[in-house]
Amino acid sequence: MAIREQVFDKIIRCFKRHGAETIDTPVFELKENLTGKYGEDSKLIYDLADQGGEVLSLRYDLTVPFARYLAMNKITSFKRYQIAKVYRRDNPATSRGKYREFYQCDFDIAGQHDLMLPDVECVKIAVEILSDLNLGDFVVKVNHRKILDKIFEVCGVSSDNFRSVCSSVDKLGQCSWEEVKAEMIEEKGLSPKVAERIGIYIQRNGGLDLIEELLNNEDLAGNGTGREGLEAMKLFFKYCEIYGISDKIYFDLSLARGLDYYTGVIYEAALTKLSHRTHFANGELHAVGSVAGGGRYDNLVGMFDSKQRNVPCVGISIGIERIFSIIEARAQVEHEKLRTTETEVFVASAQKKMTEERMKICKELWDAGIKTEQSYKVNPKLLDQLHYCEERFIPLAIIIGETELQKGVVKLRYVMSREEIEIERNKLVQEIGAHIRTFSSIKQT
Amino acid sequence: MAIREQVFDKIIRCFKRHGAETIDTPVFELKENLTGKYGEDSKLIYDLADQGGEVLSLRYDLTVPFARYLAMNKITSFKRYQIAKVYRRDNPATSRGKYREFYQCDFDIAGQHDLMLPDVECVKIAVEILSDLNLGDFVVKVNHRKILDKIFEVCGVSSDNFRSVCSSVDKLGQCSWEEVKAEMIEEKGLSPKVAERIGIYIQRNGGLDLIEELLNNEDLAGNGTGREGLEAMKLFFKYCEIYGISDKIYFDLSLARGLDYYTGVIYEAALTKLSHRTHFANGELHAVGSVAGGGRYDNLVGMFDSKQRNVPCVGISIGIERIFSIIEARAQVEHEKLRTTETEVFVASAQKKMTEERMKICKELWDAGIKTEQSYKVNPKLLDQLHYCEERFIPLAIIIGETELQKGVVKLRYVMSREEIEIERNKLVQEIGAHIRTFSSIKQT
Repeated sequence: MAIREQVFDKIIRCFKRHGAETIDTPVFELKENLTGKYGEDSKLIYDLADQGGEVLSLRYDLTVPFARYLAMNKITSFKRYQIAKVYRRDNPATSRGKYREFYQCDFDIAGQHDLMLPDVECVKIAVEILSDLNLGDFVVKVNHRKILDKIFEVCGVSSDNFRSVCSSVDKLGQCSWEEVKAEMIEEKGLSPKVAERIGIYIQRNGGLDLIEELLNNEDLAGNGTGREGLEAMKLFFKYCEIYGISDKIYFDLSLARGLDYYTGVIYEAALTKLSHRTHFANGELHAVGSVAGGGRYDNLVGMFDSKQRNVPCVGISIGIERIFSIIEARAQVEHEKLRTTETEVFVASAQKKMTEERMKICKELWDAGIKTEQSYKVNPKLLDQLHYCEERFIPLAIIIGETELQKGVVKLRYVMSREEIEIERNKLVQEIGAHIRTFSSIKQT
Repeated sequence: MAIREQVFDKIIRCFKRHGAETIDTPVFELKENLTGKYGEDSKLIYDLADQGGEVLSLRYDLTVPFARYLAMNKITSFKRYQIAKVYRRDNPATSRGKYREFYQCDFDIAGQHDLMLPDVECVKIAVEILSDLNLGDFVVKVNHRKILDKIFEVCGVSSDNFRSVCSSVDKLGQCSWEEVKAEMIEEKGLSPKVAERIGIYIQRNGGLDLIEELLNNEDLAGNGTGREGLEAMKLFFKYCEIYGISDKIYFDLSLARGLDYYTGVIYEAALTKLSHRTHFANGELHAVGSVAGGGRYDNLVGMFDSKQRNVPCVGISIGIERIFSIIEARAQVEHEKLRTTETEVFVASAQKKMTEERMKICKELWDAGIKTEQSYKVNPKLLDQLHYCEERFIPLAIIIGETELQKGVVKLRYVMSREEIEIERNKLVQEIGAHIRTFSSIKQT
């Protein structure tokens, strides 16, 4: 949790830097709200038992609840972040940070805005967070659903089969092209010729040059949605250049994203083992794993509105569990010992029968806002108390003894250096306060 | 959420001030782990549907999962806080802050410690938090399960009926004594005489004087557990005196707490309409509602250990939803307008075709850690942009215009005073940084 809180803190700071506010939604949603939103993965939804009342499921992501929230509250413009748990009945793989219950960290921009301005900001946010967390090199693969759909169309897929073929394409990367092709033919009912045609397109990737090349492809860019998608991608690349992130961006026609609700640009950030530039050179990309993803979904809010009024949205979700597993593994390798508490002072006694005096001092320190602990034994041993301080990196200890108290003083011990000084009992709170302020100003510089 | 975050922040600061660290546990537990822990309220547990695999329920509180966590990880000493959601299939009453999904804020001390030292610290924490949140006057009612059980014994209740009679007693306050008596006789099978005897005891309340009186009652304090409970309460009151909280503490023999797992001291903090001292005088207490509660549970961890090894525990749970509903109502009455974002600067343009320049400035500010927003329109109107700033209390706006940019300057506008000054374009980030530091130092003082 100590590591997690540090990571959350960096992510929240980035979300707030971009002007987002946060909301909270219930962990369960009406089952009908989740139906038909997640394509083939719908089987992973956890349902609640029927104990009377509404039929409920646990939320599968934070996007559908956000869209439901916008529709219910008739909100047409909103920039929100949400960090909360979601649930999937999947096979866990804890070493890779894959759980049945896991956090998502989402940032979304809802509203009728101009082309690609919010979309590129979402990708900028992902780049800021991944850079700030110092996870090593990464790339952001980008594609556009309108381009994908146009590819399916020109290759001869019927439009009611687009989403289903899309989720086959999504498996490329985990599976080889041969396997994906087999699935398209055997399960999705495509002819080998159609599958082959799709394969030629979706194995292409690159940068602005590829977009320009495809814009000259009459089949794709001759008219309508294909051209729209490609022009949008061109603007996307231009804005990435202005935001200084274009060296991370990578146009990848195989990127499909599993979920049904995307309608525009889609993206996925993945860590790379070596510098991604090396991989660009030979056209290969060894992604260690996706750590962020998202895209535009312009029709989801309308599904929850009685009059189908839509609010265009775009968002990014940080795959925080994978990031935790990387950072936790690194902390283990480096034998990093993290403090899990923030205690500033420990009130110890050198002799027996000091409980009441210890309690009085603790009260004074707590009431002054100073983080203070003491032993829960009436007559603890001094060595045990000092050992507790050292083990937990508590910087200061107050040691009370009868002789000192009679003189009106207590000992203040610097736990790490084991130095001790005497301070006046009735100036104790001020003295400790001053010490703590010094410590924290040293820490900040 | 803005209000909630402020409240959580105060509570977490208090928990950390007392040296606690935090953990996270899953939202669902094995159903068998929750069975037999909550007495009559077990019917309120939410179950997951049987979709194969383990039989699961949603957590009902944070205490049972904490005990399960200690047992599984063989932890024998731990001071932890946890703020998380719990689930109950109850009738919601949102105006009173009663929901089916709600947050609990728990602080617990586990370990073999000396009598009442951790227990009184838990109550001290409740008093610190309730005082800090400025909710008005409150009292902490205290009782001891050993005293209650002894009362049941001397009144003639059979020991296997203790917990069941206990949950009837728990209803006193919401129900009249006549109603509780009727339940005891009709549902719990007590004879009218036994119920009458119980009534005489549990309608008593007071302070240290009542404890002393009962210690002289041979039936209760003659031997064994009754005496133990009363001696413990005496020490409890003494420690409360040292911690400066005894004016809030109130010994109430009718306090029973519904849950089965308590074994020692139990307590409940309730807001009072008027000063609780007024109520002490005539023996009446108009509690507005319980806002915190807890107690000692020494046998719960053993239920999850294969060898029944116990870890004694005591804890306090803050009823945060009721507190939210009070604070939210107050904020509404006072028409308090809260900022829900923390944006420091808005980058605006006075003319068309300034998108790229705006984006460049935003990038520079974000990269310097400054909380920045801009319009998502390519050509937004200046008035709309300034209106957005005023509505959202964004303190600074940068306004860019072609003439100024050619001179190498931009306008910096103080949104509230509407004053404007010119600053150099290439010193923009430093200038804004300096302004923000000034603002936050004014805020702090």
